[in-house]
Amino acid sequence: MDQHQVVANWKGNMYFEADAPGGMVKLDAAEDVGGQNKGNRSKPLMLVSLAGCTGMDIALLVQKMRIEVAGISIEVTGYLTDEHPKIYNRVHVLYTFKGDNVDREKTEKAVNLSFDKYCGVIAMFKSFAQVTKEIRYS
Amino acid sequence: MDQHQVVANWKGNMYFEADAPGGMVKLDAAEDVGGQNKGNRSKPLMLVSLAGCTGMDIALLVQKMRIEVAGISIEVTGYLTDEHPKIYNRVHVLYTFKGDNVDREKTEKAVNLSFDKYCGVIAMFKSFAQVTKEIRYS
Repeated sequence: MDQHQVVANWKGNMYFEADAPGGMVKLDAAEDVGGQNKGNRSKPLMLVSLAGCTGMDIALLVQKMRIEVAGISIEVTGYLTDEHPKIYNRVHVLYTFKGDNVDREKTEKAVNLSFDKYCGVIAMFKSFAQVTKEIRYS
Repeated sequence: MDQHQVVANWKGNMYFEADAPGGMVKLDAAEDVGGQNKGNRSKPLMLVSLAGCTGMDIALLVQKMRIEVAGISIEVTGYLTDEHPKIYNRVHVLYTFKGDNVDREKTEKAVNLSFDKYCGVIAMFKSFAQVTKEIRYS
């Protein structure tokens, strides 16, 4: 069974430095809640994880399926519950493909493969959130 | 309703740069799976998110409850399923408090408050994983 490990070390106030696969991540709260804005907010890193997971699927598939694109962006919006503990109970993933005459059939197929089948982070999110997707071309 | 948003932009191969609250995050795969190791692996960022979320709760509570500690570290280990999509179905959170004569009753109370009540990321993880905790003093 594969496993991943991270270690976050407290550096005073609300600031942490986390050793993680691929590099150190700085974590801090915003100034209006007592932090010093010296690093990333912790909760939105879950959305970054999702964007990266599905993004890398798409990047691989675009190359494998020989889809010509000038750019790809993945925007992930997480909507928080009002009650505590605040969780993302609704998440929207917007895939934007840039370029002239991007093959819509192939890009849709790639997005569906990641969204429904390959991306483990999206699979985890589907346990607690309503996750929706959208594709745009520009 | 509060919302958080991140945007990951493809920079070629498997590499993405994500704009996120608190700063840009670089995302890349390891070299043995076709990446260039120019940034963090995407899935373990979920564990970083968890470590930061509960870590900041503890940092606040330590200050509020006047617990004297020389250091705090949060180690998070995620165990992946064998089948695809690979998800973390078991997660262990190890809280280590450093210092002489750290108040064990108060630190346990702080950990329990975050683990059971305050930390939204742990609440989300509990939807898909068996999440366990452990406290050590050193």
